[in-house]
Amino acid sequence: MTDLCYMACVQRLLAARNRLFPQFATHNALTVASVIEDAGSVDGYEFQRLYGMGEALYEALGAELPEAVCRIYAPVGGHRDLLAYLVRRLLENGANSSFVSVAADPRVPIAEILRRPQTRIADAEDARNKKIPLPRDLYEPERQNSAGVEFGDRASLEALLAEVREHAASDVVAAPLLDGVALPGVERKITSPIDGSAVGTVYDGDDAIARSAVAAAAAGFPAWAATPVEERAALLDRAADRLEINRGRLLALLQSEAGKTLDDALAELREAVDYCRYYAAQACSTLTPQPMPGPTGESNVLRYRGRGVFAAISPWNFPLAIFLGQVTAALAAGNAVVAKPAEQTPLIAALAIALLHEAGVPKTALHLVPGDGAVGASLVAHPRIAGVVFTGSTEVGRAINRVLAAKDGPIVPLIAETGGINAMIVDATALPEQVSDDVVTSAFRSAGQRCSALRLLCLQDDVAQRMLDMVIGAARELTVGDPRQIATHVGPVIDAEAKAKLEDWIAANERAGRLRFRAEATPPEGGIYVTPAVIELDRALDLDREVFGPVLHVVRWRAGHLEALIDEIAANRAALTLGVHSRIDLTVERIAARLPHGNVYVNRNMIGAVVGTQPFGGTLLSGTGPKAGGPNYLRRFATEQVVTINTSAAGGNVGLLAQDE
Amino acid sequence: MTDLCYMACVQRLLAARNRLFPQFATHNALTVASVIEDAGSVDGYEFQRLYGMGEALYEALGAELPEAVCRIYAPVGGHRDLLAYLVRRLLENGANSSFVSVAADPRVPIAEILRRPQTRIADAEDARNKKIPLPRDLYEPERQNSAGVEFGDRASLEALLAEVREHAASDVVAAPLLDGVALPGVERKITSPIDGSAVGTVYDGDDAIARSAVAAAAAGFPAWAATPVEERAALLDRAADRLEINRGRLLALLQSEAGKTLDDALAELREAVDYCRYYAAQACSTLTPQPMPGPTGESNVLRYRGRGVFAAISPWNFPLAIFLGQVTAALAAGNAVVAKPAEQTPLIAALAIALLHEAGVPKTALHLVPGDGAVGASLVAHPRIAGVVFTGSTEVGRAINRVLAAKDGPIVPLIAETGGINAMIVDATALPEQVSDDVVTSAFRSAGQRCSALRLLCLQDDVAQRMLDMVIGAARELTVGDPRQIATHVGPVIDAEAKAKLEDWIAANERAGRLRFRAEATPPEGGIYVTPAVIELDRALDLDREVFGPVLHVVRWRAGHLEALIDEIAANRAALTLGVHSRIDLTVERIAARLPHGNVYVNRNMIGAVVGTQPFGGTLLSGTGPKAGGPNYLRRFATEQVVTINTSAAGGNVGLLAQDE
Repeated sequence: MTDLCYMACVQRLLAARNRLFPQFATHNALTVASVIEDAGSVDGYEFQRLYGMGEALYEALGAELPEAVCRIYAPVGGHRDLLAYLVRRLLENGANSSFVSVAADPRVPIAEILRRPQTRIADAEDARNKKIPLPRDLYEPERQNSAGVEFGDRASLEALLAEVREHAASDVVAAPLLDGVALPGVERKITSPIDGSAVGTVYDGDDAIARSAVAAAAAGFPAWAATPVEERAALLDRAADRLEINRGRLLALLQSEAGKTLDDALAELREAVDYCRYYAAQACSTLTPQPMPGPTGESNVLRYRGRGVFAAISPWNFPLAIFLGQVTAALAAGNAVVAKPAEQTPLIAALAIALLHEAGVPKTALHLVPGDGAVGASLVAHPRIAGVVFTGSTEVGRAINRVLAAKDGPIVPLIAETGGINAMIVDATALPEQVSDDVVTSAFRSAGQRCSALRLLCLQDDVAQRMLDMVIGAARELTVGDPRQIATHVGPVIDAEAKAKLEDWIAANERAGRLRFRAEATPPEGGIYVTPAVIELDRALDLDREVFGPVLHVVRWRAGHLEALIDEIAANRAALTLGVHSRIDLTVERIAARLPHGNVYVNRNMIGAVVGTQPFGGTLLSGTGPKAGGPNYLRRFATEQVVTINTSAAGGNVGLLAQDE
Repeated sequence: MTDLCYMACVQRLLAARNRLFPQFATHNALTVASVIEDAGSVDGYEFQRLYGMGEALYEALGAELPEAVCRIYAPVGGHRDLLAYLVRRLLENGANSSFVSVAADPRVPIAEILRRPQTRIADAEDARNKKIPLPRDLYEPERQNSAGVEFGDRASLEALLAEVREHAASDVVAAPLLDGVALPGVERKITSPIDGSAVGTVYDGDDAIARSAVAAAAAGFPAWAATPVEERAALLDRAADRLEINRGRLLALLQSEAGKTLDDALAELREAVDYCRYYAAQACSTLTPQPMPGPTGESNVLRYRGRGVFAAISPWNFPLAIFLGQVTAALAAGNAVVAKPAEQTPLIAALAIALLHEAGVPKTALHLVPGDGAVGASLVAHPRIAGVVFTGSTEVGRAINRVLAAKDGPIVPLIAETGGINAMIVDATALPEQVSDDVVTSAFRSAGQRCSALRLLCLQDDVAQRMLDMVIGAARELTVGDPRQIATHVGPVIDAEAKAKLEDWIAANERAGRLRFRAEATPPEGGIYVTPAVIELDRALDLDREVFGPVLHVVRWRAGHLEALIDEIAANRAALTLGVHSRIDLTVERIAARLPHGNVYVNRNMIGAVVGTQPFGGTLLSGTGPKAGGPNYLRRFATEQVVTINTSAAGGNVGLLAQDE
């Protein structure tokens, strides 16, 4: 396929010889011959070969067609620049299918070597390597992957943009929804962080509504708990489909209410869809009855049951994905749910709940109470709450835990995913271009408003200045502004309070002489924007809080002092995500083994955990576990019951009597 | 095999014809012929057949040997008495191997029917049905079962008794053990609840020692956490062997310190052994790295890590099994442990720790601090504690939870197994003999000092009086006294405080006219005994506390009011064990589905949960889960870490290049 694609490009390039001069660097004799044949001559282009390779090939060519030009090239530079190039070459030459490898193998007949790639592929059906699953099939047979959109394909992108524009609205409504009935509440206008324009209206719940919601959920629990797990799963699968069908409405609202760029909004929708299907599949595989081994004459089965009413308290930064992740997990395990979305993003939450109800999730099992922290507190304090799933700050998580512990009822689970002070450790073997790309993405994408976002970049000082220059150079190129513009990289922060906090932090560090970079931009008026900033600190310990926005902190560490750096990173006891850029496997393993961070990303960016691939969540101050989107999540939402039956009590052991002799 | 055993019995009976008159009830022609041949005549015994069956057989016999006697019998009685008998008959006749079934099958040749059982079995190797595993192999290939002792076999029992007597001691010592070093502490004598005799001396720890122990464990944690899981598991397997090798010492101490009968002590030792091997096996199967599916060019692996220092706080009622269950689970998952045994039973705990150290568990990973509740409180309050595993009262569990929540550090797991108000529901279809047997075992064995013990017997009133009479009749036959006597059923309660509480409760109920039975006994002087009692209450709701001793409460419920009874049982929110005696499957399932009790036992006693067969633990006020000895326990002791590696960062995707075309 590579050879065939190469030849397709060759034909295009040759056809453009009036405007450009193609240079074909190849050591493949068949390719050389094909180029000459397609070109019809040796004019208007040249061949190239790597110094020390392909000598015999081009010697033979020169003997036959002396007018053909072959340029000999040699890479020149430091090992730093050449290492990756040489590794790539080694891998290519080492591959079994490589021409260089095949040509040198006396067992391979010449005819086989010269076989045209198109004859090997035969037809379009065979064009794909079936061992590489299509993205859609990545998780089959367990479940279908969420649908992606190729932004590089103009038609797909335009279609998506049109769909989003079509659903732009300024009059979306959310209200407390108990048993499917909207209740009156305190009216509050929701405006867009993009430009302050109207998005819609929320009617907030209060303590009385929160208590009614718990009562309604408690009443709805037995029927939902008694619904077979396969049926619950089927409803969640249907919900996933409803989400995909309604992508225009959801993306439009994710943009207007939460200020998301299109790629962020789409990634979030996909995550929500994946949660539905993943928990549906997981419920069927992990919450179905498990027979236990034991003596004959007795049956022992471990069964899973919903706990009762779960309060799901979610954040504004993933107002659809985390919101629905919590809700669908609790539902999948057989719980009734009262969902309390973030104060800033009730509209998208209400739409999500409506789609779940549409899909058939009983209105008696799933209730919504928008409102502020006081509503969350009412839910948590209610004696009938059988569990709380929460994503938000470490402080609020701790407060919830205390309220739960203060009650005289059962000890109920709190599944909390809280803050992080996420570091990336870069050593001198890392590839600077890759580091710079991954740092900018990790720190500034989504305006840094991800739990997983990079906060603290730790550069080995031998390479620190050069890497920092590259990072700042790349950050300077970011477009800050209206996230609905496809060219925008960084949209608004969520609200004025967040902006004030971030600006105070940046200003304080600027006064202390630590600000190394601040991006400039002229974002829409009426919007709430914080431009990317880079702050240099003396040591890792100096960053003692989560700065939830597009602010990257940088420290330098000395070669040979990696352990000390690790100790400093460990000292703050936040342990959510961790990045490592190094080409030394031992260093990578040493760092991952020493630090208890829940998600470690090596030689890539450290955001965008995918459901079922990168189960997400940290330890210590960053969360309780188990990881969302992972194989151990659902069971925490369930209780276990072992039913032991004396099967021989009826008068005999049928199991024995039925055995063959 | 049944036929062969039958003939072996026939020979013994025939040989004793001078003393007894054998009667052989069989419809099997081969058996009849074999009896006559072995007897050499038809004198001094008779045959029997069931009315309506075997007519042709005995007609033929009468024709050939008129002097042979065949008595015809018919069961007479109510359906209540006959149902089980008839079911057994149906099962027998329905079995493929039954003579009745085979004889009626024209495809089976006569020679086959008349083949002697011994020729089918051929040799001793074939004598066992290999589809029925030996007890030892019940859990293979996962793990070896703990060794049992057949008490019915005099030689085995005598050997065991001798081994226990040999290890009787009165000078056992326990002390705080940090890094394997015994520290001085406050001296306290341990006396036996059996008769007040000396068992040994404990040196109790205090707050300072508890804090030092946590510090020592924190220092020992990294090395233990870094020990490969297979190696940790191997050490626990070795610990199981050490426990079995030392059964004499352990059983002697379980008897003298905790007042256990021999069967209880042996069952407890077996449980401890099973915990070691089960958690070892589980660690290898559930805590090893799990690859996650994902796109090519990236590796995603979910790994499990120890949390840090676990405090293990255990009760006196299973001073070896629960103590070691907690400790081995925490160790298996890679945690360092500070174990705080119950104040009443530090000596057996110290011996258990010594055996684990002997087996190779690092002394830096496992530390012991005997003492009272204040020592437990010191451990729980320590900022370095990464988790608490606790078995004890609901009140103490709640207090621990509050102390943990009050701290400013991470939210750490509390794995609590707490009290129960365990009910058994008996309907009119239950078999009275079975009910009475299971009730007496469930309520009075171990002097009722099991978390799982039956507290509240709920009898359908149609059969209540008869069943209650049978239960009381059986309870009257129990021997209360020195548990070292093999004839003893009920040993002492743990201490004077427990006795006083129980006697107060019984006396109050006696004054209220509710005492229906109190056993009489003359147990050893100086011992602490409470004889079995039966108290009748008006309704299930009246039992609002856990009465931890040999006191059975009984209520009656009216047919058609099962839901109301279930509601009353649910109302106290304790949900540990539940017994059901009924021959109606729908009733059983209805009860199990309605009540959230962790362990439901149907048509059998409700104590003695076996590791890996009946994972143990309740919900609501009875515990947090996950179940001890179950597949989900270990992961609660561990944290999750996902390591995501961009495997193509080095310059190419080897995975793709290496794929076959």
